[in-house]
Parts: sequence; C-alpha cells; structure tokens
Amino acid sequence: MFSFTLETGAGDGPRCGRLETDHGTVETPLFMPVGTQGAVKALSPEDLLSLRVGMILANTYHLYLRPGHRIIERLGGLHRFMGWTGPILTDSGGYQVLSLGALRRISEEGVLFRSHLDGAPHMLTPEDVVRIQNALGSDIGMVLDECIGFPCTHGEAWEAMERTLRWAKRSLKVVREEVPVTLFAIVQGGVYADLRRACAEELCGMDFPGYALGGLGVGETKEKTFETVETVTPLLPPQSPRYLMGMGTPLDLVEAVARGVDMFDCVLPTRNGRNGTLFTRFGKIQIRNSRYADDDGPIDPECGCYTCRNFSRAYLRHLFLSRELLAYRLNSIHNVRFYQDLMERMRGAIRAGTFPEFRRNLMENLERSEEEEEAPGGQGAQRSRNGGGLWQGVHTRSAEG
Amino acid sequence: MFSFTLETGAGDGPRCGRLETDHGTVETPLFMPVGTQGAVKALSPEDLLSLRVGMILANTYHLYLRPGHRIIERLGGLHRFMGWTGPILTDSGGYQVLSLGALRRISEEGVLFRSHLDGAPHMLTPEDVVRIQNALGSDIGMVLDECIGFPCTHGEAWEAMERTLRWAKRSLKVVREEVPVTLFAIVQGGVYADLRRACAEELCGMDFPGYALGGLGVGETKEKTFETVETVTPLLPPQSPRYLMGMGTPLDLVEAVARGVDMFDCVLPTRNGRNGTLFTRFGKIQIRNSRYADDDGPIDPECGCYTCRNFSRAYLRHLFLSRELLAYRLNSIHNVRFYQDLMERMRGAIRAGTFPEFRRNLMENLERSEEEEEAPGGQGAQRSRNGGGLWQGVHTRSAEG
Repeated sequence: MFSFTLETGAGDGPRCGRLETDHGTVETPLFMPVGTQGAVKALSPEDLLSLRVGMILANTYHLYLRPGHRIIERLGGLHRFMGWTGPILTDSGGYQVLSLGALRRISEEGVLFRSHLDGAPHMLTPEDVVRIQNALGSDIGMVLDECIGFPCTHGEAWEAMERTLRWAKRSLKVVREEVPVTLFAIVQGGVYADLRRACAEELCGMDFPGYALGGLGVGETKEKTFETVETVTPLLPPQSPRYLMGMGTPLDLVEAVARGVDMFDCVLPTRNGRNGTLFTRFGKIQIRNSRYADDDGPIDPECGCYTCRNFSRAYLRHLFLSRELLAYRLNSIHNVRFYQDLMERMRGAIRAGTFPEFRRNLMENLERSEEEEEAPGGQGAQRSRNGGGLWQGVHTRSAEG
Repeated sequence: MFSFTLETGAGDGPRCGRLETDHGTVETPLFMPVGTQGAVKALSPEDLLSLRVGMILANTYHLYLRPGHRIIERLGGLHRFMGWTGPILTDSGGYQVLSLGALRRISEEGVLFRSHLDGAPHMLTPEDVVRIQNALGSDIGMVLDECIGFPCTHGEAWEAMERTLRWAKRSLKVVREEVPVTLFAIVQGGVYADLRRACAEELCGMDFPGYALGGLGVGETKEKTFETVETVTPLLPPQSPRYLMGMGTPLDLVEAVARGVDMFDCVLPTRNGRNGTLFTRFGKIQIRNSRYADDDGPIDPECGCYTCRNFSRAYLRHLFLSRELLAYRLNSIHNVRFYQDLMERMRGAIRAGTFPEFRRNLMENLERSEEEEEAPGGQGAQRSRNGGGLWQGVHTRSAEG
C-alpha cells in the first residue's frame, strides 16, 4: 500500500502532504535520517521514535553486499531485521556505484563493480536492484540510475540521462510483472535545463508513484542546484511526492521546500554529530571549542531533546575530546531532533500560510551565527572550494559509510 | 552521609547488605560499571537506570587530567556534570600511575608523573587525591596507594605496602581536618599472606568506613587471588563493606562473594561488549562468529534487556562487522544487564540460603559453554599466559581507556 495526499499547496511552491505506507503514515515535507547499513549511525530505533522520526533511509547497494538481501529476506525483511517499525526508503545504489570510480564499469546491461568490502566482482542490473529492494521489503524503492560527476559535458550528461530513462523503463517492467515494489523514478540531466526537462517529461509519461531529483549537490553552485529544482518541480505531477536526494543543510531544505520538494535525506545531522558540529537556531557550533570548557548551558536552551535536557556544553565537549562513544550518540540525538523540529516548524508555517516569513527569519537567524561554518569531512570537505558559508552543503546520497 | 548495614551473613562468607549514600541506597553484593572519564562507555545515564545499575565508578586520575576537577567542581560536581543521580565511587588513580611505567616516579611525598594525554608533568600527593575527590563530590573515594606489578619480591611488596599505610594515614588526616570524603582504604601486600595480614590489621586500626583489596588480578594465578581474598576478609570488620578492585569475570564475582566481598568493578562487561564478546548463562559468545549470520534468536532468550527484546544475533553480528556505533551500545547494554542480573540472583540466593547451589549451578552452566573463552584485549590478553579458560580474568582497576 502506498499513497500520497497533497493537503496544502500545489506544484511549485511549499506544500504539505501525507505519505501512507504499510508501515505507517508520515507527513511531508519530510526529512529521513540515513541508515545506510541498516542502522542510523549511533542511534537505536527507540532513539528514532523518541525523536519523532517518521521514515528512514537505507541503502540497497550496502545491504546487498553485507549482510546480503537474501539473509535479510529470510529473517523477515529489513524492518524486522533492524527493529524499525516505521517506513523505510531504500536508495538504489546508483550514487554508491558512481563513487566507486575505477572499480566500476557501466554498460547498457547494468553495473559491473568490485565490492568496496572485499574487492569481489558483482554485476547489478536495474532489474536486480528492484528485486533486491523487494527482498528487503522497502516501503519505497528507487530505480537504478546512472549518476554523473561534476563537472560533466552536455553530451555525457545526455548519455547518462538517456540510459537512466531506459533503465527506469526496465525497472518498471519488473514492478509490473514480478514484484510489487513502490518505485520512485530519478530525474537526471546534470545542470542542463534542457536535459532535466526532457528527463522529467519522459519519466512522468511512465507514471511512477513518486519522483526524485538526483545528481544535485555534487559540486555545482547552490544557485545552479535550486535553478534545477525550479526547472524540474513544475513539470512533475502535483499529486506525486518529490524527493531531493542527499541534501542538505537546514537552508537547503527550506529553499527546496519553497520550490515544491516534499522529501529529503542527508547524513548531515548524524555525520556532523559525530564530528562535534551541532545545529542551533543561530547556526552551528563546534563543541570542541575551548569557549565551552565550563559552559553550563545546554546546546540550545529551547531544544527539548534528551541531550539538551540533561547535559551541558561543557560535558559534551569533554565527552567529545575524550572520544567517548556517548558523545556521538548525544550529539546525533540533538542534531536529528534539530532537523525534525525544523521540518515540523516548516509544516506548521506552510499550513498557517506564513512560510515566507518563516524562511526569512530562519535565514536571518542563521546568518547571525557566531561561528563560521566549517565543511564536514568527506565529500563535503572536498567541495568546500565550490560553495561556502551558509550555503555550504553536503551531498551524501544514501551513503553514510 | 554514608552507612553500611549488613543484613545477612558475617565476616567471611557470602553476605547481603545495604550501602546508603547521599545519592541513594544500593544493595550489596554490588557491581559497579566503569565510567573512567565520566561516562560508562557507550551508555547514557538513562541506559544505566533502565539496566538497574545502582552505583558507578569513575577515575580521579583521569578526571583530574581532563576536564580537570576544578571545572567539574564549578559545574556542580561530577554527578551533575555527567547527569548521573546515583552514587559514584572514584578510584584514586594509584593503579593508573602504576601503568604509566617509565612516565612516573614515586617518592614518599607522592607521585610525580607525566600526563598520558600531553606529557605534561604533574605531582599528586595522597592529600591532593583526597581533595580532588572532594571537589568531584564522590560518594566514596579511595586512598592513593602504591600498586605493584607481578611478579614482585617480598621486599618490594613490603615497601609498597608500608608506603600505602603511611599514605593512608596522611589521607585520613585530610578527611578529619579538611574535607569530609568517605574514604576507603586499600589493602596491598602482593601475594604475600604475611604482608596482606599486616596491612589489613594496620588499616583496620585506622578505622576507615570501608576496605578494598587492591593489587589483585594483576598476573597472579586465580588460586592465589582467592587465597589472598580468604586471608584478608576475615581480618576486616564485618560491619564495613569490602571491595575487590578491578575484577572480574562472572565466576570471579561468585568466588569473591563466597569469601565475603561486597563490591566490585570491572571493565569486562563494557569492554567485551565493544569487542563483540557477549555473556550468556551458558558462557560467552563471539557475535562475529559466522554461525550467527542468520540466527534469528536473541543473544539470550531469557534476558530481558533492550537488546535481547528487540534484536537478533544476526543483526548484532551485522552491526558489529559493519562497525556501526549502535553495536557497541547494544552489546554493552546486554553485558551490563547480564552482570546486574548476576548480582541480583546472587543476592537472592544469599537471602534464600541457597548460595552454595547457586554457585555450583553457575559453574556447571558456564562450563557447558559451547565456545572457548577468549582473552579480551589489553591487560587480559597479556595475561592469557597465566590463567585461562573459565578463570581467565581481566584486571582493569578503574581504567577503561
């Protein structure tokens, strides 16, 4: 069972909706914490429930390699395996395959790659990926797509987009003839508006239950990111959910919601938590900073999370500097709560008709941030040359390794 | 406020009691999980409460170096700092100083050492250590003692024991004239019964509120360990609590309780949790073992911990192999619960007068263990040459680094 009901808004502005799945109903705009390997890093299902997380993301590629989808299927599916009763979206692994670089070869048939775990060769076709997601029991699966890097020529982007379309068609065939996965399509096309438009129109013709924007936040400017979102969302059917993959910062979410996006995932709250970077209403703080050495206050006095209700900045700093495992959990609890609160406030503002003020206030508050934002590790760090400041993002589509 | 009430038993057999402190009352025999740096590794105060942990251990040496006892004092003491409302015992750091090896020099005045964090020189006297524990707000503090390694000549053991006695006297002076810390003495003397006897008698003459057995589990045979416990406990005042420092395995606890010990601490449940070694009623299991790859059952079907109620061995194996932070927490929850259950069952058996059967059953069950016990990392691994099998122990007095 899958349905999406649009409650407020239309095709290209901020909108609220309701996603119904076999594992419960969630409200949109929705943020999904990332549980790549079948666990949201440092958090238990109980933690996620108490943080009011509705839906999480897992990764087909990672779970296929370890522990293997057959094992998960035998043990009753991914929900039972990881003890999570809410809905799960699984990313296909297209992005992971891209990041394997020299270890993969893409052909019309599918992707030939070497496992990042043991170097063993594997072949995955778009059809396989649908079947694997069915074995996992995903509430929403994603088509296998061909992700491209940045920069990328128009010709390369066109080829990858065309292949993504052919693969989408093959994936849909498996859904219609074999396994009843709720499968979302992925719009590709790089930063080329004509390709994005062509891709979106073709995919809409195939009638998917939902549409994602892929290949964004990979190095292009933020202006280009949101230009692309603006190009694509008006072309998508208003009654279907739209999902911006792998992004992003609090401001990214607000800007994408302003342009009609319903769903998000990003490793930022959890990865930043593990890096000691904590979100507050007034910007990010680095908990390792010596100014917090005897700061008795919580991360954010208005936050109601377990961490803020019980621990001072001084203690969190001590735990982080001492590399105590508890640090990663307490920080992640706070950051995920920050994201959940942000989504709730956005939904409230959309319903109240005050989203424009909400967006303006948020931007002003975050601009008053006392500390300069720092690029997180991994892909984000690599990209700090391209963006920066408040717009500094991180794209980590489904993969928190 | 501190008092100990013996409820069942006498001086040298299994006994039940009640320890009252400013932060609540706990029942003995008691096991204290180790929170060296102001956090029990991977567990939150909420976790500890739900595991029915009554009292925890922290380390004076570690907290003195980082974040510093002055900061903790300014922030309202260790309880408030770490968000733990129950009682806390702090070890003095004598054992940590021993393990610094070449980085420390012991004189009559105290210990001159270099910080393991940054190499900076520090001098700590027995008086300082009492004052630091007062600043931390410990419910029970320990005297600074001179720990010796194993093996050790009679002469060396005698000298260290004599110094420990002089330091105990100086510590008590600070308690009586300056700061009202509840201070336990530590009986030293290596494996030499005459020294242990002399030390115990001298210390008892000073009238401490509690007595610890130190310098055990450092390489001597298990037979020698418990011979020493048997030598010492009958000499201690029956109305005072006895604490065997840094030990041990489930069998260690039972054997020491049989000889009149009331209190224990050990890193074993948490460290083993992080190593993927899980306790069950029938011995330890290595969760990484491939036999658990699709094992749908809990670690122990009779265990009521969060981990066993919600997750299969297959999932725990997957988390552990994937190095997910959640693995360390879930494993630690189970192992600490195992230790808490063990203590509860022991107390029940003592009260019911069935301790001898309990002890026999436990030993038989653990001997049926399907897997050979493995030495844990660190000190334990080093000592696997000395002991072995079911007796294999780990001494990690107060320090889980």
